[in-house]
Amino acid sequence: MALIFFIMDGLGDLPTPKTPLQAAKKPNIDRLAAKSITGMLHPIAPYIVPGSDTSHLQLFGYDPFIFYSGRGPLEALGIGMDLQDGDVAFRANLATVKNGMVADRRAGRISTEEAKKFEKYLSMRIEDVEAVYQQSVEHRGAVVFRGKGLRGCVTDTDPHRTGVEPWECHPTDESAEAKKTARITNKYAEAVRKKLAGAPENKGRKKPANALLLRGAGCYKKVPYFEERFRIRAACVAGGALYRGVCRYLAMDIILVPGDTGDKRTNLKAKGKAVLKALEKYDMVFLHVKATDSFSHDGDFEGKKKMIERIDRELMPMLIKSSAAMVITGDHTTPVSVKEHTGHPVPVLVHAKGERCDKVKKFDEISCAQGGLGNVRGKEIIRIIQNILGKSQKYGS
Amino acid sequence: MALIFFIMDGLGDLPTPKTPLQAAKKPNIDRLAAKSITGMLHPIAPYIVPGSDTSHLQLFGYDPFIFYSGRGPLEALGIGMDLQDGDVAFRANLATVKNGMVADRRAGRISTEEAKKFEKYLSMRIEDVEAVYQQSVEHRGAVVFRGKGLRGCVTDTDPHRTGVEPWECHPTDESAEAKKTARITNKYAEAVRKKLAGAPENKGRKKPANALLLRGAGCYKKVPYFEERFRIRAACVAGGALYRGVCRYLAMDIILVPGDTGDKRTNLKAKGKAVLKALEKYDMVFLHVKATDSFSHDGDFEGKKKMIERIDRELMPMLIKSSAAMVITGDHTTPVSVKEHTGHPVPVLVHAKGERCDKVKKFDEISCAQGGLGNVRGKEIIRIIQNILGKSQKYGS
Repeated sequence: MALIFFIMDGLGDLPTPKTPLQAAKKPNIDRLAAKSITGMLHPIAPYIVPGSDTSHLQLFGYDPFIFYSGRGPLEALGIGMDLQDGDVAFRANLATVKNGMVADRRAGRISTEEAKKFEKYLSMRIEDVEAVYQQSVEHRGAVVFRGKGLRGCVTDTDPHRTGVEPWECHPTDESAEAKKTARITNKYAEAVRKKLAGAPENKGRKKPANALLLRGAGCYKKVPYFEERFRIRAACVAGGALYRGVCRYLAMDIILVPGDTGDKRTNLKAKGKAVLKALEKYDMVFLHVKATDSFSHDGDFEGKKKMIERIDRELMPMLIKSSAAMVITGDHTTPVSVKEHTGHPVPVLVHAKGERCDKVKKFDEISCAQGGLGNVRGKEIIRIIQNILGKSQKYGS
Repeated sequence: MALIFFIMDGLGDLPTPKTPLQAAKKPNIDRLAAKSITGMLHPIAPYIVPGSDTSHLQLFGYDPFIFYSGRGPLEALGIGMDLQDGDVAFRANLATVKNGMVADRRAGRISTEEAKKFEKYLSMRIEDVEAVYQQSVEHRGAVVFRGKGLRGCVTDTDPHRTGVEPWECHPTDESAEAKKTARITNKYAEAVRKKLAGAPENKGRKKPANALLLRGAGCYKKVPYFEERFRIRAACVAGGALYRGVCRYLAMDIILVPGDTGDKRTNLKAKGKAVLKALEKYDMVFLHVKATDSFSHDGDFEGKKKMIERIDRELMPMLIKSSAAMVITGDHTTPVSVKEHTGHPVPVLVHAKGERCDKVKKFDEISCAQGGLGNVRGKEIIRIIQNILGKSQKYGS
């Protein structure tokens, strides 16, 4: 038996007066729910507000309090960079600074193609540290510092708004390593500004790409591989860099799907096809759709509802037809009324041949609260998956 | 008030399309369920696959991660051997070895009477260690090593199948104690083979008892007694050596019941009578029936279903009539479709005069998932029992 672990990002919601899951017409998911056992999932711990990074780590069985050290390394891995133990990585934005103030955090929403031209200015040596920049989509990229005695405990240079100066980077602990990393970061940001100021590629740009804003510092450390820990061969079908990054961090295989843009336009059928093919070779295929969360952050109820309906129409029939086992849930609640992550639990559905069922007939926040699984903790999900796949190990005899 | 803590081994199951508990006609248990509060029990932790030994420890309030050190000592205690701190004990099988290979792991299912004749060859001194063997039922027994500097961290010599050599014993940690224990074990196994090879009792046996296979090594250490920790005077009515062993480990009293064979033929009425008598003297009587698990391991749905029906018919009326409080559950799920323990929760029922009830009317895996207790952790059971018996201690004032 193979299993699809399907996460719709930010799926959970609050009623206004219905939640998007309640309002959406989703006959396929609901029919599946009627043949499943359901419950409410607390991704990290009850009423802790999860990040997408910490939540996915926990749902894959990696306690984020042990295995999470900032988003930077996960993003860097997600865009294909190779990391070594001790590397410090940041997420980076090409930005426009005018009179010392951040004027545009995205350098006029610079295109991927345009942004690529600046990549060559952004890798350099600072003291004994090698800084390597890699461009990803539009204004986004990641920078990795490689050298002796670095540490991820430093603040952002990205002020997260316009009209203010880029922040100076500060150490957040007393270690010599954090102090060195902050110093390197500030020197790097300054060197980048000088190089970009003279870049001929900025000629004619209304909003020149003349600064790099850094955030989410973290120090990479190799972790025990997913297959080694759980005896499950796993692959990842996800459009977003972060999700690919989490999976690379755990040494899952990444399947790249043409048309999987990781946003609202993503090609769901292409993703579904890739999942079906991967089921032949892997014990578990992790499938991730980002757009449910993006609509939530935009406060767009109709958008989220219609995205759920599109998933039900375009993706679910393929998944159901595969007769693979399924675990379907979200990584956290992002209510359209709040536009941010909250600590509310998320509905979860477990379906497999021979598994127990309950009496719940619909997959939503209210119905699944009556489900047979009750309140499930994030760390329990991987054990449920191991039980379904016959990969558990008995404790005792 | 006195309480019966009734565990049906491996009781939990999966639907095919009903579970044995759902399929069984069990009017007495169901009538009791209607007057009880129910829930689903995770014996160790959610979706961790329990052994019978670790699970019973946890259900008695002893965290197995602290108090469990292998099955050997529990089995040795269960067949009546006395252990001292630092003793290492194994479960042992009389076996037939031919041309160096294990030909029969049970020496032709040797009878208890025949096996008893070999006992005298199996206790001896190895270096400064005293090895003591005791026979139990058929090919089964236990061996205890008593001496300075021993440790239970060693592997089995029982290869758990035929057609291969008995395994050499290896230490599983780097300690000098584990190394010594492995050396003693290998010397003992060799000495046993020499003694049994010349035993006149093997003359005429098609499958001579010419080797002893050892497994489940563990080091005994006295633990705080059950009555001391929980202020509950407890007795045990169980046929299987392991369950008696766990109870002796915790210094509960063991009540031996004639006809309680610990298998499918066990005399349930005799067990019931013993429980009723013990209720006069003890706060809690632990009642264990093994056969539900045995039928599960055999993949015998009808057998398990009929065993439940027999329990309902022969045992439950006596227990209910006693008007004792009751906690009824299993120590783990053993689905007949899987034939091994799994990590699924088990239905649990708590009944006592004056306790809360819920709306659940049937005692099974699906109904009790709607129960008022919700998801119960193994470690919580003893606290529930303490509350019922008025033996809890307030935390704070």
